[in-house]
Amino acid sequence: MKPLPGFFAVIPAGGAGQRLWPLSRRDRPKFLLDLSGEGRTLIQQAWDRLAPLAGPGQIEVVTGRAHARPVAAQLEGLDPANLIVEPGPRDSMPAIALAAAITRRRHGDVVLGSFAADHVIHGQDRFAAAVEQAYLAAQEGFIATIGIKPTAPATAYGYIKAGPPLGLVEAPEVRLVEAFEEKPDRATAERHLADGLHRWNAGMFVFKVDVLEAQLRQLHPALADGIGQVADAWDTPRREAVASAVWPSLPRIAFDHAIAEPVAAAGGLATAPGDFDWSDMGDFGSLAGADGRALTLAGGPAPVVQDSSGAVAVSAGGRLVVVFGAPDVVVVDTPDAVLVTSAGRVQEVKGLVGRLEDGGHGQRL
Amino acid sequence: MKPLPGFFAVIPAGGAGQRLWPLSRRDRPKFLLDLSGEGRTLIQQAWDRLAPLAGPGQIEVVTGRAHARPVAAQLEGLDPANLIVEPGPRDSMPAIALAAAITRRRHGDVVLGSFAADHVIHGQDRFAAAVEQAYLAAQEGFIATIGIKPTAPATAYGYIKAGPPLGLVEAPEVRLVEAFEEKPDRATAERHLADGLHRWNAGMFVFKVDVLEAQLRQLHPALADGIGQVADAWDTPRREAVASAVWPSLPRIAFDHAIAEPVAAAGGLATAPGDFDWSDMGDFGSLAGADGRALTLAGGPAPVVQDSSGAVAVSAGGRLVVVFGAPDVVVVDTPDAVLVTSAGRVQEVKGLVGRLEDGGHGQRL
Repeated sequence: MKPLPGFFAVIPAGGAGQRLWPLSRRDRPKFLLDLSGEGRTLIQQAWDRLAPLAGPGQIEVVTGRAHARPVAAQLEGLDPANLIVEPGPRDSMPAIALAAAITRRRHGDVVLGSFAADHVIHGQDRFAAAVEQAYLAAQEGFIATIGIKPTAPATAYGYIKAGPPLGLVEAPEVRLVEAFEEKPDRATAERHLADGLHRWNAGMFVFKVDVLEAQLRQLHPALADGIGQVADAWDTPRREAVASAVWPSLPRIAFDHAIAEPVAAAGGLATAPGDFDWSDMGDFGSLAGADGRALTLAGGPAPVVQDSSGAVAVSAGGRLVVVFGAPDVVVVDTPDAVLVTSAGRVQEVKGLVGRLEDGGHGQRL
Repeated sequence: MKPLPGFFAVIPAGGAGQRLWPLSRRDRPKFLLDLSGEGRTLIQQAWDRLAPLAGPGQIEVVTGRAHARPVAAQLEGLDPANLIVEPGPRDSMPAIALAAAITRRRHGDVVLGSFAADHVIHGQDRFAAAVEQAYLAAQEGFIATIGIKPTAPATAYGYIKAGPPLGLVEAPEVRLVEAFEEKPDRATAERHLADGLHRWNAGMFVFKVDVLEAQLRQLHPALADGIGQVADAWDTPRREAVASAVWPSLPRIAFDHAIAEPVAAAGGLATAPGDFDWSDMGDFGSLAGADGRALTLAGGPAPVVQDSSGAVAVSAGGRLVVVFGAPDVVVVDTPDAVLVTSAGRVQEVKGLVGRLEDGGHGQRL
């Protein structure tokens, strides 16, 4: 397919992925890892998905200072001007707003799509079709999101409740968003799955850059002002000075809370359905899939898993991992640390990492 | 204490300890490992226990060709003449009979005690007292065994059923043995624990070397004849030729079956009670103790075990082992392999090792 006219993409590459420790580390967050065992890291996979949709030189990455060098090394096609290095982590809203503001200053009122650096998607054609529908809705002035059609009553994701169709001729499946909903309990997730109106929030947003700036100015004027100052200075010798002065004062806030929720409430949010396979790789459960799995990520023999239904074994240290008679166990082996936990506890690994930090194991985190 | 007059000890050092894989390997069986984390390997601990009881130069080791060199390296005090290298593994009866036959030819009708190379004992005074009682019974012509007072209804050990006291003035607690019994089921083990008459068979036997030879000649004349040929040649230039010719024809048989059971049935076996702490280190359950345990055997950080009652974590690769939310899991980490199983399955690791061999993982076994 040809690139969508005037379409840019940004990949915010932040977040430590502590729930994937010991695979992910502070200096090697999950987007820099080949967690699906497909030979490309997660950010490389994001790039591969977006390259056919955005034109050459029209993919940007926002990341922290610590990861700028490995990101550049992994993405050979990335124009150095499109590697936007944040002075510090302020969550997703400032990152995306800065990319949008720089893009508008450089390219005018184009459409920008923001896609996570650390998700796994299978079904490129369906992904491209969903992005195109969202792009068409964005051209109509909506902030558009791609909502993933649920395949299970997941409690680990936020949900998007779809309203009536927008009636776009070229994008007939796009609907208004009625609400963004937090991660539900199991019973609510079951209802969401059954009603056909709820979709998983995968954090994919597509918008005209001037629409986003206008919304931001209205909803978060101080933030919009700060972003504007940094963006004005970005392609000048004052970038470093202004960014260092302004960035630390910006609020830490996620795009969902800052923009998606209030704009949805005001009727300005649209959703295109995504029926491709999607995983946010948020924990070892999503890494493994529902049936358990043995993954080999760094050479060496494949894990041997016997008589252990639901177990997950990840070999990332080149050694032989043997799981025997231990159902639902999760084993993650790396060169300097091995984690053994169980499938029901994988969401709690993040807290465990905090305790390991306190316990003096910081050099392995 | 002074050594017991005319007392020799032999340590049969064989057996792969496959149930302790990946700690134990073919070329590094469990007796060569410091499995209790006390800074001495198991065979060194056996040596340390026996050195005060047998005189200098009166401890012998029988082992296979593959382990002769590391055994000699670990036991600095071992007289090279007392390192008896078997031409091949034939189980415990030929090994002990050969040591006894060589000992009689060198030293006359002394008392020899045979003690495993790979057990852990705490309570040296009580161990020494038990050996002395068995030694006194051996001097009376009995084959004496030390029966460990049970502390739990163990199903992993064979049992010795004690009969009436022998009436030895200096060894009043020594009793006749009524029977050697196989590993019991749980209910039987409960009864054994309750009746006060059953003791664990720890494979410790003490006898006059001529008594053993006479019993062997009566019960297994062909074996006795083969052992005699090898022993006659041992301290001559013909050792290698005779041993190579005769040894492979000897039956593979354990001391328990060949001698202890039939001699007990004939009223010739005595038992001295052992009330020291004893473990045969037969699997990761005995390595850990009842309450679960974290062991560090090769430097590096101690395992972190959180919210995992009954779990066992063994770090033998210098890496950080973290067990979180996985009750009863057993994790054994080594430089080239990690095993994850559960407490109830540790007896089955031996079979697992066989399957790994078939699966092409022989170089890690």
